[in-house]
Amino acid sequence: MIIMTISEYVLVRLNELNVNHLFGIPGDYDLPFFDEMIDKKTGVKHINSRNELNATYAADGYAKLNGFGAAAVTFGVGSLSTTNALAGAYADNTPIVVICGAPNRNTSKTLGRKQLHHLIDQDLDTSLKVMSNFTVGSIRLENSETAAEEIDQLLLKSYFQKKPVYLEIPYDLQKAEVAAPDKPLDLNKNISNPQMLSEAVEAIKKEIEKAKSISSLVGPVLDRNQQILNADKIIRHLNACVGTVFTGKISHFEDHPNSVGLYQGKVSEEYTYKMIEGADLVITFGNPYTEFDSGVFTDDIGTNQASIHIQNDHVIINDEFYMGVYLKDILPILAEEVQSLAPKSLSIDPTQRKFSFELKDQFTPTDNAITIDRLFVQFANFMESGDTLYGDTGGYINLSQAEFKKDISIMGCGNWGSLGAGFGMSVGGSFAASERKTGKVVSITGDGAFLMSAQDLSTLIEHKQDITLIILDNSGYGAERQIYPGKERSYNDFLPWNYEKLAPALGGVEGVTCHSYVANTEKDIDKIFTEVIENKGVNVVRIMIDPWDSASFNVRFSEALRH
Amino acid sequence: MIIMTISEYVLVRLNELNVNHLFGIPGDYDLPFFDEMIDKKTGVKHINSRNELNATYAADGYAKLNGFGAAAVTFGVGSLSTTNALAGAYADNTPIVVICGAPNRNTSKTLGRKQLHHLIDQDLDTSLKVMSNFTVGSIRLENSETAAEEIDQLLLKSYFQKKPVYLEIPYDLQKAEVAAPDKPLDLNKNISNPQMLSEAVEAIKKEIEKAKSISSLVGPVLDRNQQILNADKIIRHLNACVGTVFTGKISHFEDHPNSVGLYQGKVSEEYTYKMIEGADLVITFGNPYTEFDSGVFTDDIGTNQASIHIQNDHVIINDEFYMGVYLKDILPILAEEVQSLAPKSLSIDPTQRKFSFELKDQFTPTDNAITIDRLFVQFANFMESGDTLYGDTGGYINLSQAEFKKDISIMGCGNWGSLGAGFGMSVGGSFAASERKTGKVVSITGDGAFLMSAQDLSTLIEHKQDITLIILDNSGYGAERQIYPGKERSYNDFLPWNYEKLAPALGGVEGVTCHSYVANTEKDIDKIFTEVIENKGVNVVRIMIDPWDSASFNVRFSEALRH
Repeated sequence: MIIMTISEYVLVRLNELNVNHLFGIPGDYDLPFFDEMIDKKTGVKHINSRNELNATYAADGYAKLNGFGAAAVTFGVGSLSTTNALAGAYADNTPIVVICGAPNRNTSKTLGRKQLHHLIDQDLDTSLKVMSNFTVGSIRLENSETAAEEIDQLLLKSYFQKKPVYLEIPYDLQKAEVAAPDKPLDLNKNISNPQMLSEAVEAIKKEIEKAKSISSLVGPVLDRNQQILNADKIIRHLNACVGTVFTGKISHFEDHPNSVGLYQGKVSEEYTYKMIEGADLVITFGNPYTEFDSGVFTDDIGTNQASIHIQNDHVIINDEFYMGVYLKDILPILAEEVQSLAPKSLSIDPTQRKFSFELKDQFTPTDNAITIDRLFVQFANFMESGDTLYGDTGGYINLSQAEFKKDISIMGCGNWGSLGAGFGMSVGGSFAASERKTGKVVSITGDGAFLMSAQDLSTLIEHKQDITLIILDNSGYGAERQIYPGKERSYNDFLPWNYEKLAPALGGVEGVTCHSYVANTEKDIDKIFTEVIENKGVNVVRIMIDPWDSASFNVRFSEALRH
Repeated sequence: MIIMTISEYVLVRLNELNVNHLFGIPGDYDLPFFDEMIDKKTGVKHINSRNELNATYAADGYAKLNGFGAAAVTFGVGSLSTTNALAGAYADNTPIVVICGAPNRNTSKTLGRKQLHHLIDQDLDTSLKVMSNFTVGSIRLENSETAAEEIDQLLLKSYFQKKPVYLEIPYDLQKAEVAAPDKPLDLNKNISNPQMLSEAVEAIKKEIEKAKSISSLVGPVLDRNQQILNADKIIRHLNACVGTVFTGKISHFEDHPNSVGLYQGKVSEEYTYKMIEGADLVITFGNPYTEFDSGVFTDDIGTNQASIHIQNDHVIINDEFYMGVYLKDILPILAEEVQSLAPKSLSIDPTQRKFSFELKDQFTPTDNAITIDRLFVQFANFMESGDTLYGDTGGYINLSQAEFKKDISIMGCGNWGSLGAGFGMSVGGSFAASERKTGKVVSITGDGAFLMSAQDLSTLIEHKQDITLIILDNSGYGAERQIYPGKERSYNDFLPWNYEKLAPALGGVEGVTCHSYVANTEKDIDKIFTEVIENKGVNVVRIMIDPWDSASFNVRFSEALRH
């Protein structure tokens, strides 16, 4: 029997889940775990983030590209700083684990009136209780006999449910010994309820047979389960039209013969809305019913037609629930079964607008000031197949409305919508992308969002990541200005940073490890977009935008968001 | 009857609590509250922090100087980002309120499967449940009839208990109308249990009469209750020697005839330990029994002598508890009552060392590299009576061991000990200090801590605060290096920033709104300490320290902290 420490065991399992980089901050309660990470050859490398919130964002962004993510922090001061990012991972269906070092196991028996540092009163369970609100598992290991089994179950729960988990390891257990795993985690096992699964398959087939026309939506949970190709097989065989959504914009389905664009309820382009809502049957693949994807619930899906919602762990057919049916189990079956069904008729009008910003809208750059409406056409054309793209709030809201070429990985701030999350995720994503070695990595963010997690630009510089960071500088919270259009509200303004000086301040060497640019005109952008492809390292592009400029589509979105 | 909105009501009450600046970030769920803050003349000015964690740190730092603090954030993404700072305020006995905008009141009835943005599943109570773990009140207003009373009770609970509270105001209530207060909050009322109070007074007098010698410790809760002068009266009359503590270093008692220095269990200087623990009776004034103040519980107070602990809301006399006796109520009584008791004998040896760094250690600066042992002597002499000083982790751990002149307000990271909190607090503290217009404001921080909340340097620049920020640059987590002395651990290292370029990158104009310096030698520091007093605006001083340098006292502290 091979023996290893509990820390090593966790790292070995994480590596099986495709975690090769772990983001985290050492503290006195977790040092043995960090020692193991740097001393043992588990394939998991430590990346020192600049704070714990950002470490967890990075784990999230890493998971969205690589399938699973991990962060490690110290007790209390560390764990409580991760909450917003953990909640975001929960809301946006991303499997990550936050590992936290805890006081020695015998601590609680000896505390009395003593107040340990990093503790609230004498309560050792504060973080466990807090995390239970936005994880599917929040546990502390208590002994080495059961530790391995508990770790496996926790990680698999996260992996299968596509939700975060939280793991505390007491200081004295971090180097306690356990048996090494005798076989890898079974990530492919069918975990669905067998009867529900076959009933759902039959019911879906019946609905498909009844329908004369089918529309479909593809969402983030499809991507999390690596089931894009099976959904594509179903969509193509049935001749369903397909729309992408805000919280999981899968470019595979945008450069697609059946594409009708980005669907967002009545915020969509008219043609998109008509094609999705006009079908006899709507099938959604991995789309939670969120405010942002439904255009603030301006959709009517299921009211005038049949509907099938294939969620991560259940299926809803015309309001009937099939619990315990997992998307990852049912899609491969459906992809086969639909082959025996008759395709529907579909006719897509190529002249109709499907996105606010379309690739064919391409234009000749001018010396004019930059407007968002024209910028995102230019930007969409800058992105190439194989690239990886993260967007944060202002950046993401706009890019979500653009049509992209096939096979660009696009990640955003989801329905949770935390400012700073998109940039934080891109830091982790750059490490995931560097493992794949395809295309360039681009992070695009509004300035208000960027400020919130800005220090981790330094993490990118330190690790010589190749990334282009685009900051849309409109000196404030632009999305919020649109909620009261034309009304000056000082709370939406802040002192603009000199973003072109930031990377050198954060440890970069201008022209060597970092390259900084300012764009005032379309021609500036055109030139910069050529240069960033040549320049290795961290490219920081500051794009000057009028504070009151906003994309045309955004008027509809902001109106819907007004309470 | 004068009518005002609920938001205005909250702001009026905050202003009575001496809140003149509120830190916060607007979001779509809290815009009416922010509108009221900028439109109504309540005396509370909005300061736009760079993220919500930092806003809450700022509120905490503001409260430590001004008595109460406030932050305002949006739902979920905002509120959950405040958790670490709220927990820190709880652990370190600081009264602040975090105000959070929430969805409209009728929302829960209409959600069904709908997932609102900034929400976990369909749960509107996530933040309320989370906050209940580290506040003494966590409520959502539900109707305008009871709102005023609920607001008053919540704020008073925070004020009297010296702990944070959390207040959610639904969107549709933020401009709902209530009657204006007919009288100000009664902050001076006696809230103690009358019988317990008189029993405690009698028991304390008996213990004092029995004792031949008395030692005393003064801690943070004394300062929070503005009871320094009453404690001083007791200490002077009784001829008690007095020690200050780590989590609340009250300089009034350091430049004091009865001072025996900074007490921290066996981490203290020998003379300090002997004087405090050698007395017949130890009285502690507002000292929670914390790991950091007791030198990792290496104290023996109460084992070989009688002990009286006057806590915020109870008194412990030789292990007997007197619940419901408030420090703010008992100290004025004791200050009178002890006058009739006979003073004890006290003889303090002026030749004995009481601090690691003493004012009399003053030296002539050399061209040598900077060492922490000599730096903090130079630093303590730079601080003048009337100044305000915030320290963060590496900065605070070291400055805590220095003797300071009288009437310097000193705030630190407390027993919670979150990296980044000290600098975050200093941002808020600079606004509180600017209201007082006494002396200079200095923030001193280790580099690892500073990174975590660095973006709020920009808040200081934007609002033209006069502050000197000192960053101790040892390229990593120096305090942690000392836990395994001499052992290279890569997780303690990060790419150093060019801190002298940071303020201009964050919107400053070098030489106008900001001034940046690098110190390599003692003479550099000497010169810089003269210049920062001349230069208005934000002064950023980078002090180069050898990564393995550490103060002599710190060897004892790090050893105690090893688990």
